[in-house]
Amino acid sequence: MLTDLFTPSVLRSLDLAGIFVFAISGALLAVRKNFDVFGIAVLAEVTALGGGLIRDLIIGAVPPAAFTDFGYFVTPLIAASLVFFLHPEVERINGAVGVFDAAGLGLFCVAGTTKAYEYGLSLTASVTLGVATAAGGGVLRDVLANEVPSLLRWDREIYAVPALVGSSVVALLVHFDALSGGTSALAALLAFALRLCAMRFGWRAPRAWNRRSTAREETEGA
Amino acid sequence: MLTDLFTPSVLRSLDLAGIFVFAISGALLAVRKNFDVFGIAVLAEVTALGGGLIRDLIIGAVPPAAFTDFGYFVTPLIAASLVFFLHPEVERINGAVGVFDAAGLGLFCVAGTTKAYEYGLSLTASVTLGVATAAGGGVLRDVLANEVPSLLRWDREIYAVPALVGSSVVALLVHFDALSGGTSALAALLAFALRLCAMRFGWRAPRAWNRRSTAREETEGA
Amino acid sequence: MLTDLFTPSVLRSLDLAGIFVFAISGALLAVRKNFDVFGIAVLAEVTALGGGLIRDLIIGAVPPAAFTDFGYFVTPLIAASLVFFLHPEVERINGAVGVFDAAGLGLFCVAGTTKAYEYGLSLTASVTLGVATAAGGGVLRDVLANEVPSLLRWDREIYAVPALVGSSVVALLVHFDALSGGTSALAALLAFALRLCAMRFGWRAPRAWNRRSTAREETEGA
Repeated sequence: MLTDLFTPSVLRSLDLAGIFVFAISGALLAVRKNFDVFGIAVLAEVTALGGGLIRDLIIGAVPPAAFTDFGYFVTPLIAASLVFFLHPEVERINGAVGVFDAAGLGLFCVAGTTKAYEYGLSLTASVTLGVATAAGGGVLRDVLANEVPSLLRWDREIYAVPALVGSSVVALLVHFDALSGGTSALAALLAFALRLCAMRFGWRAPRAWNRRSTAREETEGA
Repeated sequence: MLTDLFTPSVLRSLDLAGIFVFAISGALLAVRKNFDVFGIAVLAEVTALGGGLIRDLIIGAVPPAAFTDFGYFVTPLIAASLVFFLHPEVERINGAVGVFDAAGLGLFCVAGTTKAYEYGLSLTASVTLGVATAAGGGVLRDVLANEVPSLLRWDREIYAVPALVGSSVVALLVHFDALSGGTSALAALLAFALRLCAMRFGWRAPRAWNRRSTAREETEGA
Repeated sequence: MLTDLFTPSVLRSLDLAGIFVFAISGALLAVRKNFDVFGIAVLAEVTALGGGLIRDLIIGAVPPAAFTDFGYFVTPLIAASLVFFLHPEVERINGAVGVFDAAGLGLFCVAGTTKAYEYGLSLTASVTLGVATAAGGGVLRDVLANEVPSLLRWDREIYAVPALVGSSVVALLVHFDALSGGTSALAALLAFALRLCAMRFGWRAPRAWNRRSTAREETEGA
């Protein structure tokens, strides 16, 4: 049923676009961390494909799409090459990278939720895996770069919430039998727009209550 | 055979209790690291479900229980909410949290060993996976929080040994065909008691020989 | 077909040798990080078996070989014991450890590529998984020890390239139907020799262009 709505070629083009922009963010962090050219390629691959890889291992879709589709494998290498040769230019358009990353977030949370549901998981689990698909690559990227995942940090704009909203809308669409190519695109657009607003207006999620007073020492100690 | 001894409802209640206390420990670390509310929820989920997730991926039980049982998913969220609103009170009973974590350790090493054996693994592999179930969530928690896993550190009380003892007792019980609900509970109690003693009396495992003289510089350099 | 060329006993002996030397490198890092005896054992196991574990999860070979072969499990423990009691002597022959690690690199990239291909993956995916088998354990080792993976760092001799060359030669041999025990050994030897040369002559991979001028501040800031 669902496979009718998303023709493989449309899904794949969207996936490749998301993979490309996530790979850019991984490669840029690798350049900032002073990694060599292979470190840049590895971090681009892991950032771009890590979220989908985690999802595929959990739903039992082995070998994962990352290893069966040559385009999935080669796209991060193209992004890594671009960053390797042109990174000052790419850095200069860092705002643009943020926009692309937000687009990838929207695409991946919708694609991840849909794929998990197609593999028979419950709607709750599908929403969780949609968020994991969108955010997992970035978490792996930060772990490999030996940094605290920006997903978890209080001083970064919200990332999980837009993915959660996008995935939940897909779940609602499935529940009311209203999932189509068009409504999926709307869900992805909603997540995209929320993430853009979060970046533009500095939306942050609250920390635990009563933390304000002790936050300063924490930051100093970090 | 084994499934007769553990009625699903008993096993599940024990699992949920273990999940809850592990989630508390993850949420508390997230508060200490100054993560936002979603970081607290993510670290609670990963700490509580990570060990079982690793076990299920390795034994081929996909989708893992963490994604098929709604109670498994929602319990860490309840723990995260409690810590979010009441963390000063939870911190104050930090000793109690240590006791609950020890209980989770006992429950998870027994449940992990039993499940791995039911999936056809050897007794040695089942013991290893029992320890991984009990300790894996905490390792993932520390990796995500960008800290050296306390499981590995010399200056923390032993954690792997109680799990190893509990899992090994289960393996012996299976070998002598004496595994029952009662004997399993005794194995879990033994691991629980060992961990409590380790915390109470500061039991630590030795470092490599001849390290004492050079340990000071290592600590300073860290 | 391939299984004729590699008799199980030959493959297994080579695997155990590679596992042993990787475990030594994990145990040595654990000693340097001041971990206790169980931390040393865990890091030895993870370094030795992590790469193969990742590969087996991805190709769907569950339970992974690490959990079905008792020799795979016990070999890292022997290496960990050796390092625990004799680490000053092992450190003194650190050059020898580097040589053994290079041998493990050669063996694992060939074994990983072959196994992935036998499980039906494409040649490109098999090469990627060969590199992941050879380098994955070391990456997990560094992540658990809370260090930037030396695989990614600019100031370390190249590690991925020898593995990539060894895996690619295996892929070419498969493509031209020339894979045999002898030609596989040559591929492993080639990767081994390249890694030795990289260590001997300080071969490093380039960083991104125009980074030289800003590298100093990065290093200071790190």
